[in-house]
Amino acid sequence: MSSSCIILFFLLLTIISVQTAIVKTQENTWKTKYFEQRVDHNDYRVNSLGSFKQRYLINGNSYKGGNFPIFFYTGNEGDITLFAKNTGLIWEFAAHFNALIIFAEHRYYGESLPFGSHSFANNSMLAFFTAEQALQDYVTLIEYLKATVASTNSPVVAFGGSYGGMLSAWLRMKYPGTVVGAYAASAPIWQFTSLTPCETFNSIVTRTYRGTNSNCPLNIRNSWKAIRGIFERGQPAKLKSLFHLCDDIKDKDELNALIAAINNVWVSMAMADYPYPANFLGNLPAWPVNYTCNILSKSPANEDALLMLISEAVQVFTNYSKDVKCFNIANGGDPPALSTNGWDYQSCTQMVMPMCSDGKNDMFEVQNWDFDAMTQYCIKEFRAVPREFWAVQTFGGKEAVAKAASNIYFTNGHLDPWSGGGVLTQLSPSLHAFVISDGAHHVDLRASNPHDTTAIKQARSIAKSLITKWVS
Amino acid sequence: MSSSCIILFFLLLTIISVQTAIVKTQENTWKTKYFEQRVDHNDYRVNSLGSFKQRYLINGNSYKGGNFPIFFYTGNEGDITLFAKNTGLIWEFAAHFNALIIFAEHRYYGESLPFGSHSFANNSMLAFFTAEQALQDYVTLIEYLKATVASTNSPVVAFGGSYGGMLSAWLRMKYPGTVVGAYAASAPIWQFTSLTPCETFNSIVTRTYRGTNSNCPLNIRNSWKAIRGIFERGQPAKLKSLFHLCDDIKDKDELNALIAAINNVWVSMAMADYPYPANFLGNLPAWPVNYTCNILSKSPANEDALLMLISEAVQVFTNYSKDVKCFNIANGGDPPALSTNGWDYQSCTQMVMPMCSDGKNDMFEVQNWDFDAMTQYCIKEFRAVPREFWAVQTFGGKEAVAKAASNIYFTNGHLDPWSGGGVLTQLSPSLHAFVISDGAHHVDLRASNPHDTTAIKQARSIAKSLITKWVS
Repeated sequence: MSSSCIILFFLLLTIISVQTAIVKTQENTWKTKYFEQRVDHNDYRVNSLGSFKQRYLINGNSYKGGNFPIFFYTGNEGDITLFAKNTGLIWEFAAHFNALIIFAEHRYYGESLPFGSHSFANNSMLAFFTAEQALQDYVTLIEYLKATVASTNSPVVAFGGSYGGMLSAWLRMKYPGTVVGAYAASAPIWQFTSLTPCETFNSIVTRTYRGTNSNCPLNIRNSWKAIRGIFERGQPAKLKSLFHLCDDIKDKDELNALIAAINNVWVSMAMADYPYPANFLGNLPAWPVNYTCNILSKSPANEDALLMLISEAVQVFTNYSKDVKCFNIANGGDPPALSTNGWDYQSCTQMVMPMCSDGKNDMFEVQNWDFDAMTQYCIKEFRAVPREFWAVQTFGGKEAVAKAASNIYFTNGHLDPWSGGGVLTQLSPSLHAFVISDGAHHVDLRASNPHDTTAIKQARSIAKSLITKWVS
Repeated sequence: MSSSCIILFFLLLTIISVQTAIVKTQENTWKTKYFEQRVDHNDYRVNSLGSFKQRYLINGNSYKGGNFPIFFYTGNEGDITLFAKNTGLIWEFAAHFNALIIFAEHRYYGESLPFGSHSFANNSMLAFFTAEQALQDYVTLIEYLKATVASTNSPVVAFGGSYGGMLSAWLRMKYPGTVVGAYAASAPIWQFTSLTPCETFNSIVTRTYRGTNSNCPLNIRNSWKAIRGIFERGQPAKLKSLFHLCDDIKDKDELNALIAAINNVWVSMAMADYPYPANFLGNLPAWPVNYTCNILSKSPANEDALLMLISEAVQVFTNYSKDVKCFNIANGGDPPALSTNGWDYQSCTQMVMPMCSDGKNDMFEVQNWDFDAMTQYCIKEFRAVPREFWAVQTFGGKEAVAKAASNIYFTNGHLDPWSGGGVLTQLSPSLHAFVISDGAHHVDLRASNPHDTTAIKQARSIAKSLITKWVS
C-alpha cells in the first residue's frame, strides 16, 4: 500500500467525524482565544525561535470555579473547530461535572501555524512538527489556564478521538502530573510496526461488511478485477460513466487513483457506520454499511451486473443526496479545514502506520506494506525520513503500557477498522477498555442522539463513572 | 546565593564521589565503545544535524546471555569513567544477577561531544544539551544493545547517583517500556522551586555538623564575620597566612570567593562523610565531619582563637595529607574530567535548584535565592534563559510522581545535604525509599567496604531484593 493511501485512510478519521457537525452542535458555543506558545520547547536561547499563536476554544458556562475540573480536548489533525463541533459529549459531561471546556488546536493545523504561511515551506520550518512538541504545547497551555482562568487545584481530564485520542493517552502517560486521566476514543495507539499486523485494518473493514451479508464483501472483492478489466480492454469511457467521474481515466495511474478512491469509500463507510444519518460530502444514511450491503447482497449473473451494483453502492457515499454532479477522485473530498499535507508529513516522520491487504482475508486487492518505498516517498515529498519504531520507542510496547500507565479509558467501535490498533481489553485496574459492539469511529464522543445504541450509551456511562473517580 | 555557588555545590556531588576511585575499583574493568547517536532526536530531516559518537563502557564478564538483565548506569555531569570507578556496587550486583554492565556517558560531557571541540562555542551548539535528549540517548542505546549484544527480552535496570540518579528515575518515569526499574541513589529530584524550600540544603549541612557537637556549627557560623573583619581591618595578608592561600586577597570579590570556597569545604565534607578514608584533592579521613568537629568542639576565647580553629578545620579538607603547598580558591579543585562549564549550562537552562541560607537555622551567611539575578548571569554567560519550573512541568510534582510512577528505589544519606531534595519516604507500593541514617552522598553505590555501616548494607540489601522482583 502506498504511503498516500495510508494518509488518505487516516485522514478519513477526521473527514467522517465532521459529518453531522451542523445538526448536532447548534447549541454548543465557545470563545476563540490564542496563547503565545514556544515554537520549540527545547529552545533555551535568548535569541530563540520565539513564539506563535496557538488557537484554543474555551467555554466556561458550566464551570463552577475553584477546584472543579478542566476538560481538555487534545486537538488532532485539523482545524480545532471541527473537533469541537463533533465532540458534543464534552458539553454534556461539562454540565454534569461543572467543568471548564477547552479545545486546543494542534500545531501546524488550522490557525496554529508556527511560521504562518511559511510553516510548510521546507523541512526546517517543519522541524517542530512532532507529537512531543504538541504534547508540550498542551502541558504549557494547561499550566497557564490553571494559573489564570481556572485553579491550580483543578484536575484536568484529557479528551480526544482518533489521533486526538492517541494524544490524550500519551499526555497521561508522559505527563501524569498534568492530567489526572484520559478519555481516549478510537485511539489506535498500537497501529504501529511490531504491535499490530498490517493486514488487521483491512480485515476489519471486510468484517464490518461481512456482518451484514456474505455476498457484500464478495462482490466488492470481485469488483477490482472487473474495474481493471474495463480499462485493460480499452473502455475508459465506460468507467467514467459507471462511476459518474468528473474526469476521464487517461492512464494506469489514474486507474489506480480510481481504485484507491473506491477503496476509501468502503473504508469511510465502515468508519462512519453510525446509527443515524450523517452529512458530509453529501449525505450518508443511517447505518451506511447496512444500506450499501443491501444493494450488494445479490449474486450478479455477470461482470456487467456486478459493476452496476458496485456503481450503485459507491454512490451511497458519493451521491446519496442525488445532487452531486460528478465524483472527483482527485481531491478525495477533503474539507478545506483539514490539512492533508499536515498529516502526510506526520506519517512521513512519526506516525508510520503499516497497512496492507491480502485479497483473501479481506475484500481488497493485494497490497504489500513497503516501508522502503514509503521512505523514498517521504524523502522526495518532505526531505524527511520516517522512523518505523518511533511509537514503540517513545511510548513503550503493549506490556509497558499495561504495567506502567494508569487512568486511561480506551473506547473502540467494533465496526471501526481503527479498532484493530486500539486497546480492546482492560490492561490493569486503572487502564480501562470498552468495545462498542455496534459502534464506529469515536461515535461515543459525539453528542447524544435518540438513535444511540445501548452500547454507545454504556461507553459514555462508564466514562462518566471513571471521570468521577479521577477528579475526586 | 549566586548561581555560580549553586553550580559549585552541585558539582561537588561528583567531585566527592571521585575520591576513592583508585583504591576501591582496581578490579573493575570495562571496554570502551562508541555509539552513533543522533545530535538531535527531534530532527527528521534528510539533511539532519547527523550523529556524534557517544561513549559507553561495557563489561559482560558476569553476563550469562539470553534474558539475563542489563544494568545501565545513566551517566551524569562528567567523564563516564569517573562514575564507573565510583559505582563498584554494580559489579557486585552484576555478579549476583548475571548481568551485563553498561555505563553510558551523558552528552556534552567527557568524550561525548555532539560538535567536538565546538560543542560549547555558542548557544546554538548547546541547543541539544537537555535532559530530554540525554534520556533519548539512553533509550536509543538500550534498544541497540538489546538488539545486538544482549537480548530483546533482557530486562534493563537503570542505576544512577546524584544527577545520574535523577536521570535513572526520570528514565523509568518517561520510558517504562525501556527500563523495568531504577535505583536512584541520592537523586534530588525535588530540589526545585515549589518542591523544596531553598534553605533546606544548608540547614542539613548544619544538622550534620551539629550531630557531632553543638559548638562545631556555632564556631563556623561565627567565623564568617571574623574572616570579613580581618579583610575590613585591612589585613588581607593575615587571611592568606591563616588559610594558606596561594594568592593574595586583593578585593571584595576575592574575599567573597574565599568565603565561598570555605563554604564549599563544609558542604563537601558533609557530602563525603563516609565511614572510611577517601582520597581526592589530598586525603580525607574516615568520618571527616566528626574529625573536623572534634577540632571545632572547643569554645574559643576570642576571635583569633576561633580563626585558628577554623583554619585547622579547613585544612582537614584542603591539606589532610600535609603535602599541599597552598589552597587555590580559584579552581575550586575540580578534576579536569569534570565539566564545570557543562553543569553550569544545565543550571542555566533546566537544572534550576534554589538554595539559600538564613544564618539562623544554618551556620552560613545570609544568602537569598535570586532567580532574576541568576537569569541575568545565564543570559550573560550562555545567552540562555533558565526555566524555573522545568522540572515540575516535565516530570510532575510530588503527588504526580507518587500516583503515577512505579519501580523506583530512592536512597538518601541522612548526612547528605542533597537528601533534602530527595524522596525520603515510600510513596506507593512500588516507589520505595530508604534513608541511610549514617550515610552521605550515594555511599550505597560504592563498592562494599569493611567499614560500611549496617544502614549502608541494608540499603543495598533492599536494592537487591527489589531488583530481583523487577527483573523476574
